[in-house]
Amino acid sequence: MKRLKLKHFLCLMAPALGLLWLWPELALAADEPAALSQSHANITWTLLGGVLVMFMQPGFAMVECGLSRAKNAANILMKNFADFMIGSLAFLFIGFGLMFGHSEGGFIGSNFFMISGINDGSSPDAQWGLTFWFFQSVFCGTAATIVSGGIAGRTKFPAYLLTSLLISLVIYPVSGHWAWNSLNAGANGDTAGWLGNLGFVDFAGSSVVHSVGGFVALAGAIVVGPRIGKYTADGVPRALPGHNLALAALGVFILWFAWFGFNCGSTNVPDGTIGYIAVNTNLAACTGFLGAMLTSWYISGKSDPSMSFNGVLAGLVGITAGCYDVNPFGAVLIGLFSGVLVVLSVLFIDQKLKIDDPVGAVSVHGVCGAFGSLCVGLFAVPNYGTAEVVGLFYGGGFKQLGIQAVGALSIGLWSLVMGLVVFKVVKAVIGLRVDPKEEIKGLDLSEHKTEAYNSFQIFSNN
Amino acid sequence: MKRLKLKHFLCLMAPALGLLWLWPELALAADEPAALSQSHANITWTLLGGVLVMFMQPGFAMVECGLSRAKNAANILMKNFADFMIGSLAFLFIGFGLMFGHSEGGFIGSNFFMISGINDGSSPDAQWGLTFWFFQSVFCGTAATIVSGGIAGRTKFPAYLLTSLLISLVIYPVSGHWAWNSLNAGANGDTAGWLGNLGFVDFAGSSVVHSVGGFVALAGAIVVGPRIGKYTADGVPRALPGHNLALAALGVFILWFAWFGFNCGSTNVPDGTIGYIAVNTNLAACTGFLGAMLTSWYISGKSDPSMSFNGVLAGLVGITAGCYDVNPFGAVLIGLFSGVLVVLSVLFIDQKLKIDDPVGAVSVHGVCGAFGSLCVGLFAVPNYGTAEVVGLFYGGGFKQLGIQAVGALSIGLWSLVMGLVVFKVVKAVIGLRVDPKEEIKGLDLSEHKTEAYNSFQIFSNN
Amino acid sequence: MKRLKLKHFLCLMAPALGLLWLWPELALAADEPAALSQSHANITWTLLGGVLVMFMQPGFAMVECGLSRAKNAANILMKNFADFMIGSLAFLFIGFGLMFGHSEGGFIGSNFFMISGINDGSSPDAQWGLTFWFFQSVFCGTAATIVSGGIAGRTKFPAYLLTSLLISLVIYPVSGHWAWNSLNAGANGDTAGWLGNLGFVDFAGSSVVHSVGGFVALAGAIVVGPRIGKYTADGVPRALPGHNLALAALGVFILWFAWFGFNCGSTNVPDGTIGYIAVNTNLAACTGFLGAMLTSWYISGKSDPSMSFNGVLAGLVGITAGCYDVNPFGAVLIGLFSGVLVVLSVLFIDQKLKIDDPVGAVSVHGVCGAFGSLCVGLFAVPNYGTAEVVGLFYGGGFKQLGIQAVGALSIGLWSLVMGLVVFKVVKAVIGLRVDPKEEIKGLDLSEHKTEAYNSFQIFSNN
Repeated sequence: MKRLKLKHFLCLMAPALGLLWLWPELALAADEPAALSQSHANITWTLLGGVLVMFMQPGFAMVECGLSRAKNAANILMKNFADFMIGSLAFLFIGFGLMFGHSEGGFIGSNFFMISGINDGSSPDAQWGLTFWFFQSVFCGTAATIVSGGIAGRTKFPAYLLTSLLISLVIYPVSGHWAWNSLNAGANGDTAGWLGNLGFVDFAGSSVVHSVGGFVALAGAIVVGPRIGKYTADGVPRALPGHNLALAALGVFILWFAWFGFNCGSTNVPDGTIGYIAVNTNLAACTGFLGAMLTSWYISGKSDPSMSFNGVLAGLVGITAGCYDVNPFGAVLIGLFSGVLVVLSVLFIDQKLKIDDPVGAVSVHGVCGAFGSLCVGLFAVPNYGTAEVVGLFYGGGFKQLGIQAVGALSIGLWSLVMGLVVFKVVKAVIGLRVDPKEEIKGLDLSEHKTEAYNSFQIFSNN
Repeated sequence: MKRLKLKHFLCLMAPALGLLWLWPELALAADEPAALSQSHANITWTLLGGVLVMFMQPGFAMVECGLSRAKNAANILMKNFADFMIGSLAFLFIGFGLMFGHSEGGFIGSNFFMISGINDGSSPDAQWGLTFWFFQSVFCGTAATIVSGGIAGRTKFPAYLLTSLLISLVIYPVSGHWAWNSLNAGANGDTAGWLGNLGFVDFAGSSVVHSVGGFVALAGAIVVGPRIGKYTADGVPRALPGHNLALAALGVFILWFAWFGFNCGSTNVPDGTIGYIAVNTNLAACTGFLGAMLTSWYISGKSDPSMSFNGVLAGLVGITAGCYDVNPFGAVLIGLFSGVLVVLSVLFIDQKLKIDDPVGAVSVHGVCGAFGSLCVGLFAVPNYGTAEVVGLFYGGGFKQLGIQAVGALSIGLWSLVMGLVVFKVVKAVIGLRVDPKEEIKGLDLSEHKTEAYNSFQIFSNN
Repeated sequence: MKRLKLKHFLCLMAPALGLLWLWPELALAADEPAALSQSHANITWTLLGGVLVMFMQPGFAMVECGLSRAKNAANILMKNFADFMIGSLAFLFIGFGLMFGHSEGGFIGSNFFMISGINDGSSPDAQWGLTFWFFQSVFCGTAATIVSGGIAGRTKFPAYLLTSLLISLVIYPVSGHWAWNSLNAGANGDTAGWLGNLGFVDFAGSSVVHSVGGFVALAGAIVVGPRIGKYTADGVPRALPGHNLALAALGVFILWFAWFGFNCGSTNVPDGTIGYIAVNTNLAACTGFLGAMLTSWYISGKSDPSMSFNGVLAGLVGITAGCYDVNPFGAVLIGLFSGVLVVLSVLFIDQKLKIDDPVGAVSVHGVCGAFGSLCVGLFAVPNYGTAEVVGLFYGGGFKQLGIQAVGALSIGLWSLVMGLVVFKVVKAVIGLRVDPKEEIKGLDLSEHKTEAYNSFQIFSNN
């Protein structure tokens, strides 16, 4: 019996020993404080990204204001507020649904209008949906606000409001859906957008956001025509320099800062890739400056501040599509080429096409946006981002490059054609351009009965 | 014996089987990397919120500077630095204790003076306490800085410093305690503030921060009197336009950006609600712009930039109390009404009351702050924020609305009356207003022996 | 047999009971959502810190531009873009390796050139390495950009580019390695830098970043000589006031905001200390303003805006070394003394040494940087930061103070001597200073063929 007791004792001890063996883990689990859940971390990260992207608005406002003339400063500021307001409301009621709703054949979304289905602050799914809505709404505002620069200095304020509405309501969401799919793509038997299905990569929107804004701006600049005095009777372009390079520089720096929200925030998840996305973004901005500075220096004999500032933006636009899939040296090259390209493009549009784009919006956002999308097909490497996305220079052949070309081209064409339609319709219905007398007097006085710089002595440089 | 052995074998196996059954969980626990603890996440989130709220200071500085005249630009900048400095120090030594200390009957706090009790960088509780102190100190700085705009262009710099000290030391913390309770309310048998006990909801401070600043500014504007030239001998108001609308616009955008820290950060926890708080905040800013733009357009025939910019701020102030408890459509309406209200209020105060508030601080922060607090009682919905807080329009009856009225009124009255006391005392003791000659010359030269825009040609506009 | 069965039953039950006892923990583990891992949290935090530090660039740009004359505004903006671009690329190819590579005897790093070893977006270690690279590259850009202010208004643009390259390539990384060690110090048998081994504490870089920038600026100001008109023939200093105090104030506020990324981000971990680091940072900025405002008021009879703005920066520079190890009252005093010191230093350098430092970069960053490093040896307390780091005033004796003096002195001397070498070499090779005619005309026209404020009436104040 004694021996039995010992055995039974051992039997009884065994579980205790088992628990003892578990002890460190259990102790850890018991003492360990609650941890931030991944879903709340995703909401936090996406929210911070959205907040930074919202801050692009003063960036654009300062760049466009600084590169405009003093007599139009208040008008361009008003436009920058107004397009963001209009974009947010259009996206709330219609745009988000068209862009991220249930996909109708990969071409257009069809639910979530008026945030129906995610209008609930107490459900975790809807909390994510609303956060995602916020993030996407500020992207929509970014695309919309790009246009104001290209048609600055001669466009009627009410006409601008109307065009801005049509962009946010239709142009931006539709091509956005093609590339970025529906919110629930993959689930519920939902299909992706047709470009997304094709394998088109535009991580944070070189085409989806910037090309759309840039090519609609091109359409607007064509339809509204050049500012008075921009071209001589013989078609020789004249410089109409901006009134405040300090504001322009500030705006560029603000955009640079906010771009980290744009690119890093586009992961929607604070994972290990966000750090190198920031590296890529920052390096491309730097070499964009370098490329534009050197190109302008080579062409004109002096490094040109406005061109160099636009080079920063060009580099940022260029890296936006590929920031997740290229390595830092790819980013260095993409930025550099974007910086060179933006100077050549500005000169080509100004001197050859004779289209008046006061701030270079078409070149920075349209041209470099398309270029950036193509660059994914050139510079994507296997050990960054999606392993299967590999560019021509890294052994991927022409496949990805071809897909990128299809994406950049289709989004660019869509934006340009629809932009022409929108501006022509608005021109026909309510008129697009202010009276020449009012243009010469300046839009601040004629459209807003105000002066931006009251009490300062300002010469007319019309 | 053999059979017994088998049984004993089973006995011994059982714990091992138990462990085997546990294995997946244990393996998971062992392999799983350490996770960010919720308490560190809360510190991080609250810190980021506070950093963004600190960034409101340049927002206010640029708005107030841009809407002032060039001759007073440096002075208003100095005031914006000084009030934040004074507020931080006053809050360190006294204010935080009065606001968040152990509640004396719901009326005033009584410990944490000089951060005693939380002055320890190595204790987790104190680490949270210091983070919370930081977050609250920048809120105090926000309330203090609102005042400078209302009394801009004629107030002595030393007098301003003294009034700012009294606001941060007494006025702001006391009414803040009423609504926001003590740091440890609920624990240690600590009672809440009397408005908090009543059920008053002011999530991020429409009343607690903005109304306090706005109504103290009203008191200041009354006591110091209008600027020379603001009203003709017959009492007809004259416009004294600001000198730089680009700075004003920049300031508004900066405030908009920083407001996400103000509202979203006020959860103190990065949970699932912060995303929709951002949605509400952003939409109200947009419709605030819309409301003010349309109202000014209707009244004066043109959309007015200054009014529209103030509309953004009005929408933001209006949504601050309810951002946690209303849905996006409530936010759209609250912003819209705030935008309309701010224009009417500015005109009423300027033309009927003949009180000179150079930047519209009273209307934006005082009036729209009180309005925003009331709106919680109108627009709160059950499935956003606290389920029990339901507004009149969503079946909550008049109960919450009544509580909100009590809160808005008591905080507004406290601020106005105490503001009058403070300004009258300062006026009696060291004088509030600069010499008329110095006012005409400008406060930059008379108070700081400097010019803000050296080498620029600037005309006197009185 | 029955009794035996019962016993055996108990034996069999025991493990089940053990499991039952474990149940709550297991259930918790199973239901618990995935949590944000600490390594991803660290990447997120460090990234956010780096993004904020990048935003220092517009801060410096606006301060330096605002305190320059209008005719040199575009030039200083270009320099602020260019040095950040150069710093980033220099750090990518060489600088990071010298600073954070495998330590060669504590004096210099020797791997990671061209980010080799961390150039992999899919490996967790490399993801952290790239994030850390980003954070450190913006610090390098900060040190580089400080220099431009001290030599503003007379330095050739190409010469500036070359000096900037040499600073980022050699001067900054080498002394940085001494204090901040290699990335993998402690692992792989890697030794720390010699100052790090000594116990030198410079948490976020009062010496490593700011003193380096400030003393290289001193070297530059000495070699390039004062601006034309700065000193009369008798050596009497004349004020050459800046053209835009609003921009300068904005820049200071932006720097203040970004400094939270600088100091709080330097933990590289979102733990419980980041909150009080923010408290310390903010309070020192406040009392820096207070100290400089009162000192200038005492000396000149009026509170001086430029001096007071520089006081904010002085307080921030001063707290940077000790923000982790001092308590809020230490921060209050460090900021206050830094604010007093910066005014005295500016006057001493301007009037006694007759060195022309247009924006006070030497005093703000060099002098207050060294002072801040010393303050760790005075104000460090045991219950904040590293328990063993204790200053003289808290019973630590002279040991830490001595170490701090060695660190501040060696980094200061290295920067000054190497700065003199760099500027003299550049002067000899390509020339440092613009032609006097071009200097009088302004660098915007002579170096960039542009005007910063086209159409504004600006008087010459040379």
